[in-house]
Amino acid sequence: MPHSLDPIFRPRSVAVIGASTAPKALGRQILENILNYRFCGPVYPVNPKTSELLGLRCFPSVQAIPDAVDLAVVVVPRPAVPGVIAECGTKGVRGVIVITAGFRETGEEGRQLEEAVAAEAARYGMRLVGPNCMGVINTDPHVRLNATFAPTMPLAGNVAFLSQSGALGVAILSIAEERNLGLSSFASLGNKADVADDDVLAYWADDPATSVVLMYLESFSHPAEFARVARQISRKKPLLVVKSGKTQAGARAAISHTGALAATSDLALDAFLAHCGVQRVGTVEELFDLGLAFARNPLPPGPRVAIISNAGGPAILATDAVIGHGLEMARLSEATLAALRPRMPEHASVSNPLDMLPDADAPLYGFALERILADPGVDMALVIFVPPLMVDPVEVIGALETARRTAAKPVVGVLMAPEESRALLHETFPDHLALCQFPESAARALAGLERQRRWCARGPGQEPKLQVHRAAVEQILEQAQREGRCELHLHECFQVLEAYGIPVARYALVRSAEAAEEAARSLGFPVAMKLPWAGIAHKTEARALALNIRSTDQAFHTYHGLTHGGALGDTVLVQEMLSGRETILGMLRDPNLGPLVLFGLGGLFVETLRDVAFRPVPLTDLDAQELIAAIRGYPILAGVRGQKPVAFASLEEAILRLSRLVQDFDVLEEMDINPFFASERPEECRAADARIRLRPKP
Amino acid sequence: MPHSLDPIFRPRSVAVIGASTAPKALGRQILENILNYRFCGPVYPVNPKTSELLGLRCFPSVQAIPDAVDLAVVVVPRPAVPGVIAECGTKGVRGVIVITAGFRETGEEGRQLEEAVAAEAARYGMRLVGPNCMGVINTDPHVRLNATFAPTMPLAGNVAFLSQSGALGVAILSIAEERNLGLSSFASLGNKADVADDDVLAYWADDPATSVVLMYLESFSHPAEFARVARQISRKKPLLVVKSGKTQAGARAAISHTGALAATSDLALDAFLAHCGVQRVGTVEELFDLGLAFARNPLPPGPRVAIISNAGGPAILATDAVIGHGLEMARLSEATLAALRPRMPEHASVSNPLDMLPDADAPLYGFALERILADPGVDMALVIFVPPLMVDPVEVIGALETARRTAAKPVVGVLMAPEESRALLHETFPDHLALCQFPESAARALAGLERQRRWCARGPGQEPKLQVHRAAVEQILEQAQREGRCELHLHECFQVLEAYGIPVARYALVRSAEAAEEAARSLGFPVAMKLPWAGIAHKTEARALALNIRSTDQAFHTYHGLTHGGALGDTVLVQEMLSGRETILGMLRDPNLGPLVLFGLGGLFVETLRDVAFRPVPLTDLDAQELIAAIRGYPILAGVRGQKPVAFASLEEAILRLSRLVQDFDVLEEMDINPFFASERPEECRAADARIRLRPKP
Repeated sequence: MPHSLDPIFRPRSVAVIGASTAPKALGRQILENILNYRFCGPVYPVNPKTSELLGLRCFPSVQAIPDAVDLAVVVVPRPAVPGVIAECGTKGVRGVIVITAGFRETGEEGRQLEEAVAAEAARYGMRLVGPNCMGVINTDPHVRLNATFAPTMPLAGNVAFLSQSGALGVAILSIAEERNLGLSSFASLGNKADVADDDVLAYWADDPATSVVLMYLESFSHPAEFARVARQISRKKPLLVVKSGKTQAGARAAISHTGALAATSDLALDAFLAHCGVQRVGTVEELFDLGLAFARNPLPPGPRVAIISNAGGPAILATDAVIGHGLEMARLSEATLAALRPRMPEHASVSNPLDMLPDADAPLYGFALERILADPGVDMALVIFVPPLMVDPVEVIGALETARRTAAKPVVGVLMAPEESRALLHETFPDHLALCQFPESAARALAGLERQRRWCARGPGQEPKLQVHRAAVEQILEQAQREGRCELHLHECFQVLEAYGIPVARYALVRSAEAAEEAARSLGFPVAMKLPWAGIAHKTEARALALNIRSTDQAFHTYHGLTHGGALGDTVLVQEMLSGRETILGMLRDPNLGPLVLFGLGGLFVETLRDVAFRPVPLTDLDAQELIAAIRGYPILAGVRGQKPVAFASLEEAILRLSRLVQDFDVLEEMDINPFFASERPEECRAADARIRLRPKP
Repeated sequence: MPHSLDPIFRPRSVAVIGASTAPKALGRQILENILNYRFCGPVYPVNPKTSELLGLRCFPSVQAIPDAVDLAVVVVPRPAVPGVIAECGTKGVRGVIVITAGFRETGEEGRQLEEAVAAEAARYGMRLVGPNCMGVINTDPHVRLNATFAPTMPLAGNVAFLSQSGALGVAILSIAEERNLGLSSFASLGNKADVADDDVLAYWADDPATSVVLMYLESFSHPAEFARVARQISRKKPLLVVKSGKTQAGARAAISHTGALAATSDLALDAFLAHCGVQRVGTVEELFDLGLAFARNPLPPGPRVAIISNAGGPAILATDAVIGHGLEMARLSEATLAALRPRMPEHASVSNPLDMLPDADAPLYGFALERILADPGVDMALVIFVPPLMVDPVEVIGALETARRTAAKPVVGVLMAPEESRALLHETFPDHLALCQFPESAARALAGLERQRRWCARGPGQEPKLQVHRAAVEQILEQAQREGRCELHLHECFQVLEAYGIPVARYALVRSAEAAEEAARSLGFPVAMKLPWAGIAHKTEARALALNIRSTDQAFHTYHGLTHGGALGDTVLVQEMLSGRETILGMLRDPNLGPLVLFGLGGLFVETLRDVAFRPVPLTDLDAQELIAAIRGYPILAGVRGQKPVAFASLEEAILRLSRLVQDFDVLEEMDINPFFASERPEECRAADARIRLRPKP
């Protein structure tokens, strides 16, 4: 069945609307690119001012074209765009790429125009890329579409590239050529009025020419859909992204810890991408280093790296970087060492790293790599070559090519050589091993491969079946909304948690000092007493909380103290004092990423050390386990100084139930369960305090 | 006065001993390099097998040279090296560079030979660089020495480069040329048998041609001397280093926390370099990015960055990186914005980042940079240029040159262009602004400039005058050594601390249950009781510690419990229970870095979160303040949830006194003061437990 994006990526014919006669105009450049790249179908320039362009017949309008048009590339001035889109629709065009800028990115008026254009395209069932983009490329020899204005002709290869930014797209294509990185497809999406990142990702999932996807993104069009699609694809094809822009647009008056933590950290975004199986890289350069490594290598069978070098310093740098990235230095077998020794120069260091000294020539490099990759204790190799005067880099790379192609293990090279020799190399061995300029970058690339292996080896986990009382929660939330409240009272919070099976401290609501005495006695001393009303953030500071009440007398007086003799209203919540290791469970709704669950150590840790981790919902059991293990203070939960571990299963279940709660109720905006006491005994793992904030009614 | 390294870096004449007739031999290459680089003095090839080489008269030995020889470059086979050194000495040669390899790096025999060679050179008062190095360069037009075998002829400039590794040196020179980075001097030190990193550093401190020093180091020859020299120089000339190799060679059976923490982290090295004012960079690439930025820019007046771009995506990447590196985004003044607006294209985003859209041409770039640098709210600028088809990169860079040279503020550029245009650029503007390939690298480079500004602005601090009882400590340490102990008993530790004015808990040593009762009563309940004997690490686990003893009865029974009725010896230490925020003070002696003082949060924090910071001794008051503020948990000391701050002055003084103790006694190998209670009241800041380990007698 044809895909709705086929007319964009695999059109049978293309019209360039706004093809220009001016040599430096974008419309002219796009037409030239399409022709120069030898598009496999008819090309129709559209421009009412001329009847011929670059040797092609030029049409006054898209409707004047006598044949069917699959794809229209629109480069007309902004005011003309809506009319052109309508004409395309009438003509039966199936996909449009709007290069023209001046829409959403310029303000409210532009946004409205953009929405009108998108709606018009949708009315005719046309998919629309852009506006404000630099176009689309497909290097498939049966298509050969270069509908961009970039000055670089793309090399064909197995890497697909998605760039939200048009200008960066131009740079990306230029760097790809310089790095000899071949592309399957390229798409610059611009304002994403219709075709979104997740659409293209899903399309490339089924594209046999694409085995790696690189992305530059500033936002997610539909985070939940992106997560769903990416989580699937990433098990088959590595996804790498440079994500820029802040997670939360501007400062947000976050009244609770959970909110504040997400706003001030990039953790949420990292968590979201990790959850999707997308590797986030820090820089565009790293994106290329890793992209190239993925494009030219299988995944490693494990984390053990062997280093081969002709220079000691870079080998040490590489070793440090290998360890620093969490990989392991392989231990070469006796057989391997015995095979290597006789061939090595006198003072060579025959171990890992293998330092063959500057005399090492191409045959020695080839021999060493072959032997080392054959060692079952080696999962991948990092080969460093600093060209001395007497050895030719191209010969060395040639020898490495032969060796690495016989072994199904990844090899990344470091060529610390001037640019000239690299160009010659690309010509001689178009698919040569991935090369970095520095040892550290090569180690980082290998670490990316290993991370991908671990992701693929990790199962997706199970979404557990949980019994919950949805109706009970609905009732509480509706009541609060009816009363115009955005925060729940503490006892309501407890009821919500209990309805979803998240255990809370035993408590009682009392309306008199005598009832407080009675409740305290029946809960057992010591108890805590609180004003349960919504809107009291730090209870200690607001004098709305009293802990460690040890007698009925104290309970009596505390009741009066908290209520100021009844002035603040007379309901007080009395609850048992819990003990255990303090944790925080929470959720927040990130405007760019959707709902996230949070876990961390509670108390001082959450406030001062910000030792928390995030995950987007829905969570599987495995996700919950990883969320708990992700915090720095994990050893405190696992038990130090002879302490027993907390009941992890209970903690995990509480997180999964929280995830379910978040999924079930869109109106939940922010939650803190802090502290949630984690104890060695499952039955003592319980929430001692909670806050729930609802989305304000529009 | 002439410097002992002048014959190495500024020789008036050079002999190449081992100058070879074989075209690819190192000895031939070095001679060629010296001649091709037009050395400003006589050059004497030495080779007994020929009488003429490259048109020069060739001498059978250094002694046969009729004139004085300042510098001898030695490239003879290893066995001939000692004889050649002796001949040089006899001849009156003043400096030697030994290129020949096969010494310390090959094992014990090589090490002995190397020491013999170094001793021989010293006997004649000759300074010796190497062995196993690639030589020395000085680009000073009055010297023009290129005594290396690198294939690259160095560009002249203001950056000095020190490389411990020879092979990496070759790569460094090649990359420097590619990046258009001009060098003042270059030295590859190899095995550092005589001339050490700190020697060269001190030499370059007074070299007017050098304004930045880049280093690749694997070890420090004399860490204390390096620290002393670097701390001075770094206030005048930025020092940047890639330091590789692990801090601690191999795993060390670290019995205490302090030791284990240093062994498993890179923190100690980071602390050492930060203390020296040396910026440690992660990769060779970063070294060049920062080196270039320092070479071409003044220091910024502050941390505020303005970004100018013709593309939105890269500008966002740059913004993220600027914030991520701790810099600030400048707020442009109304006057600046008003001046910019009329000249900008229609949809340009006139703020910071300033996005001028792809149409921006050279004059617009020049205008924008000039206006923005004139804004008093801008301390430095990051300019991004993604070349569109119609704008020439060389013209844009030219316009930026004019603008930036009138303002005394740093500018780093990002040119996301193919390599070709860069080469042309270097030709047209040899000293053009520092350029990076990626926005992130440019932000990192600006952050390096700002870090240097802060370092220069920060005074060195004062080493305080402290009253201490040195003799008392001497006595205790000698006693322990006489008894063959490497660990002090707890009461000895307390006495050592007290002698140096580090406050400890009040305590008493008792030898009977009755005395324990009496001591507990007089100290006041609750008390702690401990076996004070050396060698008991985790006292709780070893049942050598009892806390919270609340009655004389309990003290009585505890005495018997701890001593097993006297079986373990009958001395027990009774001490008051302290309270406050637990910290750890410690020291360790790193084999590569010398003595370091450690500070961190105590208890669970130190064990599970490793929240500690290090500093080499001696410390100034400012160093101590920074050490305390460096830990993540600092807010806990400053006070959270309405808590008051601890008495920082007392904590600081304890650290300074510890530093002094460490300085005064070389025999101290490792110390833990854990916990040291930090309290709001100065008089309650006291050590509750301590361990001191001495260096074993040889």
